[in-house]
Amino acid sequence: MSQSRRSFASDNVAPAAPEVMAALGRVNQGSVHSYGDDPETQRLTALARATFETELAIYPVATGTAANALALAVLAPPYGGIYCHAAAHVNTDECGAPEFYTGGAKLLPLASPDCKLDAHQLDAPIAHAREMGVHHVAPAAISISQATEWGTVYQPEQLRALSAAAHRHGLRVHMDGARFANAVAHLGCAPAEASWKCGVDVLSFGATKNGALAAEAVIFFDPELARDFELRRKRAGQLWSKLRYLSAQLCALLEHDLWLRHGRHANALAARLAQGLRERGLRLMHPVEANEVFVAMPVKLVAALRAQGFEFYEWPAPRVDNQPIVRLVTAYDMASADVDALLAAVPRA
Amino acid sequence: MSQSRRSFASDNVAPAAPEVMAALGRVNQGSVHSYGDDPETQRLTALARATFETELAIYPVATGTAANALALAVLAPPYGGIYCHAAAHVNTDECGAPEFYTGGAKLLPLASPDCKLDAHQLDAPIAHAREMGVHHVAPAAISISQATEWGTVYQPEQLRALSAAAHRHGLRVHMDGARFANAVAHLGCAPAEASWKCGVDVLSFGATKNGALAAEAVIFFDPELARDFELRRKRAGQLWSKLRYLSAQLCALLEHDLWLRHGRHANALAARLAQGLRERGLRLMHPVEANEVFVAMPVKLVAALRAQGFEFYEWPAPRVDNQPIVRLVTAYDMASADVDALLAAVPRA
Amino acid sequence: MSQSRRSFASDNVAPAAPEVMAALGRVNQGSVHSYGDDPETQRLTALARATFETELAIYPVATGTAANALALAVLAPPYGGIYCHAAAHVNTDECGAPEFYTGGAKLLPLASPDCKLDAHQLDAPIAHAREMGVHHVAPAAISISQATEWGTVYQPEQLRALSAAAHRHGLRVHMDGARFANAVAHLGCAPAEASWKCGVDVLSFGATKNGALAAEAVIFFDPELARDFELRRKRAGQLWSKLRYLSAQLCALLEHDLWLRHGRHANALAARLAQGLRERGLRLMHPVEANEVFVAMPVKLVAALRAQGFEFYEWPAPRVDNQPIVRLVTAYDMASADVDALLAAVPRA
Amino acid sequence: MSQSRRSFASDNVAPAAPEVMAALGRVNQGSVHSYGDDPETQRLTALARATFETELAIYPVATGTAANALALAVLAPPYGGIYCHAAAHVNTDECGAPEFYTGGAKLLPLASPDCKLDAHQLDAPIAHAREMGVHHVAPAAISISQATEWGTVYQPEQLRALSAAAHRHGLRVHMDGARFANAVAHLGCAPAEASWKCGVDVLSFGATKNGALAAEAVIFFDPELARDFELRRKRAGQLWSKLRYLSAQLCALLEHDLWLRHGRHANALAARLAQGLRERGLRLMHPVEANEVFVAMPVKLVAALRAQGFEFYEWPAPRVDNQPIVRLVTAYDMASADVDALLAAVPRA
Repeated sequence: MSQSRRSFASDNVAPAAPEVMAALGRVNQGSVHSYGDDPETQRLTALARATFETELAIYPVATGTAANALALAVLAPPYGGIYCHAAAHVNTDECGAPEFYTGGAKLLPLASPDCKLDAHQLDAPIAHAREMGVHHVAPAAISISQATEWGTVYQPEQLRALSAAAHRHGLRVHMDGARFANAVAHLGCAPAEASWKCGVDVLSFGATKNGALAAEAVIFFDPELARDFELRRKRAGQLWSKLRYLSAQLCALLEHDLWLRHGRHANALAARLAQGLRERGLRLMHPVEANEVFVAMPVKLVAALRAQGFEFYEWPAPRVDNQPIVRLVTAYDMASADVDALLAAVPRA
Repeated sequence: MSQSRRSFASDNVAPAAPEVMAALGRVNQGSVHSYGDDPETQRLTALARATFETELAIYPVATGTAANALALAVLAPPYGGIYCHAAAHVNTDECGAPEFYTGGAKLLPLASPDCKLDAHQLDAPIAHAREMGVHHVAPAAISISQATEWGTVYQPEQLRALSAAAHRHGLRVHMDGARFANAVAHLGCAPAEASWKCGVDVLSFGATKNGALAAEAVIFFDPELARDFELRRKRAGQLWSKLRYLSAQLCALLEHDLWLRHGRHANALAARLAQGLRERGLRLMHPVEANEVFVAMPVKLVAALRAQGFEFYEWPAPRVDNQPIVRLVTAYDMASADVDALLAAVPRA
Repeated sequence: MSQSRRSFASDNVAPAAPEVMAALGRVNQGSVHSYGDDPETQRLTALARATFETELAIYPVATGTAANALALAVLAPPYGGIYCHAAAHVNTDECGAPEFYTGGAKLLPLASPDCKLDAHQLDAPIAHAREMGVHHVAPAAISISQATEWGTVYQPEQLRALSAAAHRHGLRVHMDGARFANAVAHLGCAPAEASWKCGVDVLSFGATKNGALAAEAVIFFDPELARDFELRRKRAGQLWSKLRYLSAQLCALLEHDLWLRHGRHANALAARLAQGLRERGLRLMHPVEANEVFVAMPVKLVAALRAQGFEFYEWPAPRVDNQPIVRLVTAYDMASADVDALLAAVPRA
Repeated sequence: MSQSRRSFASDNVAPAAPEVMAALGRVNQGSVHSYGDDPETQRLTALARATFETELAIYPVATGTAANALALAVLAPPYGGIYCHAAAHVNTDECGAPEFYTGGAKLLPLASPDCKLDAHQLDAPIAHAREMGVHHVAPAAISISQATEWGTVYQPEQLRALSAAAHRHGLRVHMDGARFANAVAHLGCAPAEASWKCGVDVLSFGATKNGALAAEAVIFFDPELARDFELRRKRAGQLWSKLRYLSAQLCALLEHDLWLRHGRHANALAARLAQGLRERGLRLMHPVEANEVFVAMPVKLVAALRAQGFEFYEWPAPRVDNQPIVRLVTAYDMASADVDALLAAVPRA
């Protein structure tokens, strides 16, 4: 009998989906042109255009950090500023990759209670920046995470208002979609409705956390922006010579909406988990709208769960009622039984 | 009946080896810790240490450009200079990746007739640099390709003399080993004899051209040099969250010396090809010591071969007797029949 | 009759001191070696060593932004983090110069009520950074302003505690001393007591705001740190060929402690101004310890003063009782009468 | 009796001209707005427009390296390539400043016998770059020195042909005019004829070598190019708060064509020197068209001159007839007697 899946540490501890592995095997035939001049990469563009119902340019890379940093390097000059939430992955978890790729642009962190930026938050800092002139970095872009780092999801109208504000100020909009699948699954809308129709200029489309082995895509909804992207990708050592293997992973996930089914599955497990924890008297820190559950947990319970092999991170957030905040992440490959096993280990209050 | 392999354009048009694909399948089981804290990555270190018979630190990345650029960023400060052959891949084919990763260090190209640097070539430019003081970038490293870009191979005594000269001047030695397998196969020596025992400080160990799907490794023979490497790798978006899939490819190639068998196979085919071309009266431009054949070819023959579906690049080199120089690359996945098919298309002089 | 000095906008609207101009004239004789191999630059080192009572390396540059950015580039690698106050000049007023010079290091802003960092503020963020490992930039340095951006001054014991905390964590200490003269004048201590004896590793010693035409100095109290500084300075276009003219300005200010007399003078005027404003019922936002006065001022008064030709900036800070915060800066070249003229224009409450 | 001027090492060993010093004194009056919002800086723009007979944007900085590097950063993206002569100052003497300021763009050195680039030299390397696609840096600009590093001067028709070739390929044209005054003096044409009318997009207008204390200007003949320049200048620590002192130096040189008179004077002395050396049987290496004389000199003579206090550099060039190549530079502040003193020390053959 196989061991239940006990790691709720991250969706990146999961293996790759069978469909992804099969796709790798399928394209592993004969010689093809390198650096993207291959049928699978062409197929990826077609699939992405169908998925998003628009012309677009899509570029596969291997990591989310690369996708974000490359996208931001296109949007912001070295002397530019990028507004983001203080907790944004680009600001806290990428060891300065955006700064590296942009040549030193500055992330300008903003705060909010739900990890979303609000359209009204931009006016004051941008007005201040303009007034400061050459002494302040030039506001160039905003970067938002969808789903957010706290497992919440922007509603389309929130995105529209935010993008409109950004564009009104001449800023571009980047979406870190490491968990875009979870967000779209939650919204139940078309991918287009959660991206370019809301004013997103560039999307980091995540796949690694959602069933790929290592694959993300930078999607430009404004092809003009993509003009020099390929040079940047090459220069960053992010262009695979055997690009078919990156494209194949993304194709496998886009086909038959596997990416969305994965997202829905992980979301449902997170909802089940949240519900169970709530019933057991634990306090959830944020609405559970994607596949992450943030919960205040007594220190003793943290230890007890770990003793039973459960894995998860304490979040770098202030304690609540002297309880650390714990993050529990579900993934496409988990089963209800995995969630129930954890819940079973939490005593009813 | 399967089509013969007609592309001699590059060793990166080849698919991945069955052993590599099998390894991916093997590690595609259950959840493991991300970012390298997994058994397969530990196994890689052990295998690499056994292969090179020494303590070392090994870091897998997905592309050769990334491996080279990361290695050079460790060896050279932003105000540093890196001597290399004018034709070095780092100088001509990576869209400035070394400049990007180092923060603007300068590649200082040297010329030579066989694409190798010579120990005696370093003294004069380094003396000049020292004399120039702060006006000249600070000599920091040399970068050499083994096998070279022209398919030749440094002999161990050449490497030893070169490294000794570099070290005497306080410079570090980087080896771009995109085709290290072909070089070692040619030399018939232990990998250690072609690397750290000859004074190589950091090796970009190539695997993508040699049967991997996308995998290279940066190998530090001096662990002290590796101190901050992991931060640089992360910051460059080169750290896979699911690192097991990168490590697995490298393990598959290191196990049972598959990488060397691949190198020997490709070399043998190149030798067969060179011999056949020579017999047909064509002029080879360089000794064929690895898996690349550079040959002067009448324009008509170039056209005729292409008309039959053969693929290869004209090399950016001056014509010889009004004939363009053509590069033909063999690979681990080709068969003698593939070589013979091309030779059959070349008329006897 | 000459117009009174009506600009309180900044200490950089002032001209250069007569002693500085005289020094330029004095060194403007004959040919001397360029790039710092000249007598005046040697004299500067001697004067600085006497002033700070220690061995040190001193490098003149033309702007404070250059001094800060070069200093930080020595202390922090591209993947490093630099803790500073959120309001630090390096964080808010230099258009990303530290990010540019460091190659993308990250300024990590901290908050405090008096614009000083506190020794106890470092532990938690550094512990968090260590825990995050490669995902977080590597804590490398702190940068503090003395006097601070809000016109307050660190006491030596505060500096000692802060430096000790930084050093305990392996971080280096940079002091932005654009107004170091004002700080030392306030403290009434020896320059050594306010710098290296308190653990400062590198000091940006400001002169432009204090009587120079354009001159600052980067002072390394640990010569080992200075090792590659000259290469960085040259590479940044900050090495003057006719360096004597930069050194002469600094020499003129260091001789006979002119810099300190200037600092004391400006401080005294700021104290007089603060006292007068307080007497007129205005609310000061911070203790006035250097040459800057931050005061909440009714909108009508702001307009009235401007109508009379007085110049000053509204500060980017939240209003107090609906009054904007105004910054008034005194300088070495102002007279009591200039301060009194402004006070005369402020009605008694 | 004053010592004759015995240093022929560089034009930057000279002091500043009396007119420049006087101008500094003149603007050293009262408080003015900082960062360039001052009358002297406005006057500079007017003077420069009159001098060049066109609309232009002019930005003063303190060093030639800064001027060149900032200009190139505007013209070339980080993934760009900049063609220049192998001996160009930007390529050999600036410690990688262009690489730093551009974020890692690549200087692509070309060779020629007279240190000038030729219009026909560009086609082949650019065609090669285009063919290489993303693997090659994107050709973005050419940088030419006028006068050249070897004391020769481009004729206007040469410049026109070169610029036309560059523009035809979509490249911009930068001119390093550290010795632009000497070049224009030699050509005897209007400054416009030697710059924008010949297709120069950006000029580094040198003044430090020509009588300033420390002043150069970046001049954009296409104002659109200047759009973000001020942000780059600030970010580089190259924006003086008391900008009047930089502008005043440039104004003093532009007024009444002092810069040109200086250039003509230095050129005349170089011609006199060259003639004298030739008469004494020494071999000149290049036509003497500006203020630099390159001459092959017996080792004994080199030593004898140095023993008498003459200073100059041996040039990093191959010896001729076993004689080192020596560079002798004249300057605006030298007298005929200084040249004659050196000639008197050279025995007639």
